[in-house]
Amino acid sequence: MPTSHRRIVLASRPDGAPREDNFRLETVPLPDLAPGQVLVRHHFLSLDPYMRGRMSDVKSYAAPQPIDEVMIGGTVGEVVASRSEQFAVGDQVLGMGGWQEYAVVVADGESATGPQRGAPLRKVDSSRIPLAAYLGAVGMPGVTAWYGLNILCEPKAGETVAVSAASGAVGGVVGQLAKAKGCHVVGIAGGKEKCDFVVRELGFDACVDYKAATTPDALQAMVRDATPKGIDGYFENVGGAVLDAVMLQMNPFGRIAVCGMIAGYNDAPTPMVLPRLILTQRLRIQGFIVSEHPALWPKALAELGAGVATGAIKYRESVAQGLEAAPGAFLGMLQGKNFGKQLVKLV
Amino acid sequence: MPTSHRRIVLASRPDGAPREDNFRLETVPLPDLAPGQVLVRHHFLSLDPYMRGRMSDVKSYAAPQPIDEVMIGGTVGEVVASRSEQFAVGDQVLGMGGWQEYAVVVADGESATGPQRGAPLRKVDSSRIPLAAYLGAVGMPGVTAWYGLNILCEPKAGETVAVSAASGAVGGVVGQLAKAKGCHVVGIAGGKEKCDFVVRELGFDACVDYKAATTPDALQAMVRDATPKGIDGYFENVGGAVLDAVMLQMNPFGRIAVCGMIAGYNDAPTPMVLPRLILTQRLRIQGFIVSEHPALWPKALAELGAGVATGAIKYRESVAQGLEAAPGAFLGMLQGKNFGKQLVKLV
Repeated sequence: MPTSHRRIVLASRPDGAPREDNFRLETVPLPDLAPGQVLVRHHFLSLDPYMRGRMSDVKSYAAPQPIDEVMIGGTVGEVVASRSEQFAVGDQVLGMGGWQEYAVVVADGESATGPQRGAPLRKVDSSRIPLAAYLGAVGMPGVTAWYGLNILCEPKAGETVAVSAASGAVGGVVGQLAKAKGCHVVGIAGGKEKCDFVVRELGFDACVDYKAATTPDALQAMVRDATPKGIDGYFENVGGAVLDAVMLQMNPFGRIAVCGMIAGYNDAPTPMVLPRLILTQRLRIQGFIVSEHPALWPKALAELGAGVATGAIKYRESVAQGLEAAPGAFLGMLQGKNFGKQLVKLV
Repeated sequence: MPTSHRRIVLASRPDGAPREDNFRLETVPLPDLAPGQVLVRHHFLSLDPYMRGRMSDVKSYAAPQPIDEVMIGGTVGEVVASRSEQFAVGDQVLGMGGWQEYAVVVADGESATGPQRGAPLRKVDSSRIPLAAYLGAVGMPGVTAWYGLNILCEPKAGETVAVSAASGAVGGVVGQLAKAKGCHVVGIAGGKEKCDFVVRELGFDACVDYKAATTPDALQAMVRDATPKGIDGYFENVGGAVLDAVMLQMNPFGRIAVCGMIAGYNDAPTPMVLPRLILTQRLRIQGFIVSEHPALWPKALAELGAGVATGAIKYRESVAQGLEAAPGAFLGMLQGKNFGKQLVKLV
C-alpha cells in the first residue's frame, strides 16, 4: 500500500478568470484505514463546470470549496484496501473522491469527510459500460441532461429543441435524448469541428457555431436561420449572448432549463438583454441542480445506461493525463477547449 | 336613440413614450341595429397597462392595435337597444367595447367586429358588486392576480410573497389573496401615500417605496430590509430595477410570475442584471397572459366576487371623467400617477 499520494487543493479564490496558481499540488501521507474505511485508487477524475462556481465565495446553491482542502470532484476507481464488509478489494466504485490519486472513504459515505461527505460510494460495473462513462453520460452529466430536458423542457415530438455547449458531456446527451423523442434538434457549439461532430456523430439536425458570429446580431441571425420553426425547448449551459440570441427565437409557451451560465462565472455578470420576452412569449425559465432531485436518478441512470451500452447514446471525451494536468485541463474546459466530457486519467 | 357618438382611435404608433397625439377623438355615426345586435351605452371604460403593448407594432402575444380603429378596452355599461333575444334593454353588461361612448355588438360576440371580436358580451349584476368592479377586482385584473399568484407563485402559509405595483388593480388583489393564505406580504409601490394605503387599508405587512430609492443599491437595501426571510413568491408588474432588486432576495426554489414589464415598454429595453440568480437560486420565472387560461376564470371570479361583496377584498379606483380624458389618464397611469384601478367614467 502507498504511504503517501498527491492531491490538488484550492490555494486561493480567483479574482476574475481562474488561473493555475489558484491551485496547489501537494504530496501528503495516506493514513492507515480505520474500521469501516476503504482505500480507493482513482482511475479517472471528472472535471465539470460547476467546480468554477465552488471556487468563488459567493451566494450560491452550495457552500464554497474550502481553501487548502482537496478540490471537489467525481471519481471512478478501484478499491485497493478495505476494512469494510460492504466493499472488497477489486470493486470498481464511483464517488466524490476529489482531485487526488487516492481517497480514504468511509464506506457508507455518511460520516466521510472532505469531498466525499454525504456521497455514498457506489459500486459500478464496467463490463458493458466503460468505467469513465459513469462520470459522463451514465453519471451526473447524463442525469443533468435527462432531468433538464424531460422534466423542465418537456419536449414533444415535432417540436424544436436547442442546446448550448452541444458537444459537451451534458449537451450531447440532451440532443440525443431529444432526437429520440422525435424533436428537431439544434445545437450551439464553439467551432466547426464540434458542430460537425454533433451533426454527423450525434445526429443533431443542425448546429450553430457561435464562434463564427462576430456580433450579437450575427449570432441571432445564425440561430434564426437554424430554427425556422422557432424554439420550443432550450437547455442552457452557457448564458450571455447565446441566451439572448435563443430567447429571440423562443416560441410562445417555450421552456428554458437553466443548467449553467458559464458566461457569467468570471468578472462582470452578464445581463439578459430582453427579459420582456418572458412576458410577450409566455416563457418558463427554470434553474436546477440535478443533485437536488435524487428520486429521479435511478430512472434516468437506467435509461442512460441502456443507451450507452447499446451504442444509442454516443459521446466524446477529452482525457488529460496525470493529476498534475488537472488544473490546466479545467481552465481549458472553462474556455471551451475540451471536446466532450473532460476527464483526467490518473492510472 | 343617438345617431352619432364619440370614440378614440389610435392615430399613430408611439416613438418612445406614448403622447396624447398618438390618439384622436372623433365623432362618428351610430348605425341602425341589424338582427342579433345590441346597442350598449358604456358607463365605465377600463384603462390597463397591456394597452401600451398593443400600441406598438412589435412581436408580442397579441396583434397590434390597428391604426385609425377604436382603441381596445374593457367596458361595462347598459343595453339601450336590442335586436337580440339574449339581451334586453336595461341589462348591465361587461364587454370589450373599446374607447367609445357606445358600442354596437353582435350579442354572442363571435361575429362582432372591432375590439369586441371574440369576446362575448356578459351580463353582470351590480346589486352586490359595484358595476366598475367588473373591470377591476372582479374582472380581468382580479383574475390576473388570482392566476399569477395561485398557479404560478404557488404561495404556502408562512412564505414571503412580494408584488410590485402593489396599490394597482392587480397588485392590490395579489397581496390580499396572499395574506388570506397566511403569507408574509410585501408590496412595492411608488410614493408614501400608496405604500401607506397597501399597509393600512389592504393589510400588507410592509411596503417598499421605490421612489424613495435614489440608486439600485438603495432600492436593493430597502427590499432586503423589508424581507428578512427572503422572498419565495414574486408577482412582477414592472420589471427593470425593481425586478433586479427582488431577484437578489429570492430564496432557493422561488417562483416569479411575470405579468407586466412596464419598465421596458418605452425606449430601450431594460435588461435583467443578474440572470445567473436563476441558476444559483433555482428560480422558476414564468410569463403569462390571463386570457389564455379561460378554464380557471369561473373559479377565480367566484372567489373574487365573494371577496368584494363581503368586503374582504378592498381596492381603490382613479376615475377620469369623460371620454376626452381617456388619453391623459392612460398616459398618467403608465407613469404611475393613478392610484388603484384606472377607470374612465362616461355617463
